[in-house]
Amino acid sequence: MNVNLMHGAGGEVMGELLRTLTAFSHANAGGIGLESLDDGAAIPFDDRYIVFTTDSHVVRPLFFPGGDIGRISVCGTVNDLSVMGARTIALSSAMVIEEGFPIADLERIVCSMDEALGEAKTSIVTGDTKVVERGSLDGIIINTSGIGICDRPIRDSGLQEGDAIIVSGTLGDHGISLLSFREGFDLGETLRSDCAPIWPIVDLALNAGDVHAMKDPTRGGFAAAINEMAKKSGLGIILEEEQVPVATSIRSAGEILGIDPLMVANEGKVVMGVSADDADAILSAIRTHPLGRNAAIIGEVVSGSRVVMQTSIGGERFIEPPLGDPVPRVC
Amino acid sequence: MNVNLMHGAGGEVMGELLRTLTAFSHANAGGIGLESLDDGAAIPFDDRYIVFTTDSHVVRPLFFPGGDIGRISVCGTVNDLSVMGARTIALSSAMVIEEGFPIADLERIVCSMDEALGEAKTSIVTGDTKVVERGSLDGIIINTSGIGICDRPIRDSGLQEGDAIIVSGTLGDHGISLLSFREGFDLGETLRSDCAPIWPIVDLALNAGDVHAMKDPTRGGFAAAINEMAKKSGLGIILEEEQVPVATSIRSAGEILGIDPLMVANEGKVVMGVSADDADAILSAIRTHPLGRNAAIIGEVVSGSRVVMQTSIGGERFIEPPLGDPVPRVC
Repeated sequence: MNVNLMHGAGGEVMGELLRTLTAFSHANAGGIGLESLDDGAAIPFDDRYIVFTTDSHVVRPLFFPGGDIGRISVCGTVNDLSVMGARTIALSSAMVIEEGFPIADLERIVCSMDEALGEAKTSIVTGDTKVVERGSLDGIIINTSGIGICDRPIRDSGLQEGDAIIVSGTLGDHGISLLSFREGFDLGETLRSDCAPIWPIVDLALNAGDVHAMKDPTRGGFAAAINEMAKKSGLGIILEEEQVPVATSIRSAGEILGIDPLMVANEGKVVMGVSADDADAILSAIRTHPLGRNAAIIGEVVSGSRVVMQTSIGGERFIEPPLGDPVPRVC
Repeated sequence: MNVNLMHGAGGEVMGELLRTLTAFSHANAGGIGLESLDDGAAIPFDDRYIVFTTDSHVVRPLFFPGGDIGRISVCGTVNDLSVMGARTIALSSAMVIEEGFPIADLERIVCSMDEALGEAKTSIVTGDTKVVERGSLDGIIINTSGIGICDRPIRDSGLQEGDAIIVSGTLGDHGISLLSFREGFDLGETLRSDCAPIWPIVDLALNAGDVHAMKDPTRGGFAAAINEMAKKSGLGIILEEEQVPVATSIRSAGEILGIDPLMVANEGKVVMGVSADDADAILSAIRTHPLGRNAAIIGEVVSGSRVVMQTSIGGERFIEPPLGDPVPRVC
């Protein structure tokens, strides 16, 4: 058996490969370890937790509307820490570069990483560089790992019955805009990746009320994230389609491409399960930030095991976990 | 200007590229940051330090005598933390895999990583997997990042005049044996990589006396490491050639290949500068461990700025920092 592209697409098929890749007998240092398949690990330290995460970035093209591989490398890792409830302390950056790669492109990538570091108020404190022979890699791969600190980690499995589901903004922006750009659609400035550090949003939410569960809807999109949260929490979810924010331009481009915006990656959004009593306060807090101005309460956690979308005309359909993200090389 | 292979070879040429890749205005979180170009960063936390490091592993072939890409991924990162004086708390693992890669090889790599984790008494607590199209990568790249804890980080720049230089064992084993294997030399079981976690050695040394500086002599070998330590410390070093441990088989293979064992990577060794008063105690402690049985005091730190080798016949030569490791894809 060989690895295939669906093995890396963030959906159900990926689970098979992950069983091989997580077969370590040494996979936990106390706290939350690899077995949780959460957005990061959490290790008890003194009376707090060190949160630790890693991502290798292979996005293509390297530069796209709204971002580039450098920006996504910083934001992706900060966001994984953020949805664990952790403030980022520091990042690492390890680059594997193909011989012949233009130094000018490297400079542009480093500059973009630095800008994102400023927005996320963190630093790259350690690094590694490898150069490989021409033809053995198509350009560059950037790994960023990160460490953060929190008093108490938030799990993706922490949903409680009755919780409100909040998304911090429009869904599908990154995946749809990246694919549109690749396909050469010229829909103007309206199609841009949402790539951004979401810590400010998470920080506002944590200070406004009880957040029980969070997840970063990247590969496989909102559909993968919400199903994983439901499954891990052993609960069902009812969503109201009218409340789910999707930008008009993203919806149109998705229709042209035949791709559901709920099944593709976001790079600057968070899905939360919050105490129903605190939902309005948390929503108001998030909306004070420019990145959260389209935040919405889109559903409710119920008993059961499925994610159900109630449509505006009174119908219902299941939101299934996708087999994989239809857009490869998305992050 | 484009990136070339020498830019990744760990020697003097690499410095040019590093100036581009470390041009972050956000590169320090307190303590030791990217600007130090040490084996890792150290971030003050409560009354201790979190040490943080990263390495992307591109070694070829994937399986070689004495190790494989999995073993080297775990050991390399544990060793970077160790030479900062830190006990490893946890590792991350991020794999980028080419479509078509055999699952059986992945299982073998995971198994080898797990074995090395056991030896190093640590865990892989978080991970990431990306699969890329056939032809866009030659097989697999593994990034491991790591976090460790120490009371006080040890710098590679901490040498003091009068210090003794200790190496924990024979030099050049990894680079020479890897290249011999690639070239198809059959010199039997005597040529094996030294790939191993060196924390037990470092721990023994730290408990036996004052260690002022340490470094992991990987790419560019002992020659790169000792020159970097001398340069960063603003001091010179006098080495005694007769004391420098090099295995006979490695020396012979190096002569056949035309490669100096002091200029190629080690993956299970440490170079230390220690207080002269404690040198014998530290050496004795290290030698109690199987990985340290060939440890030796090989020289002394002096004023000046050069690394000088005194030969057995009474001559002297400079040990220059290599332009780069002559063996590509060594780790």
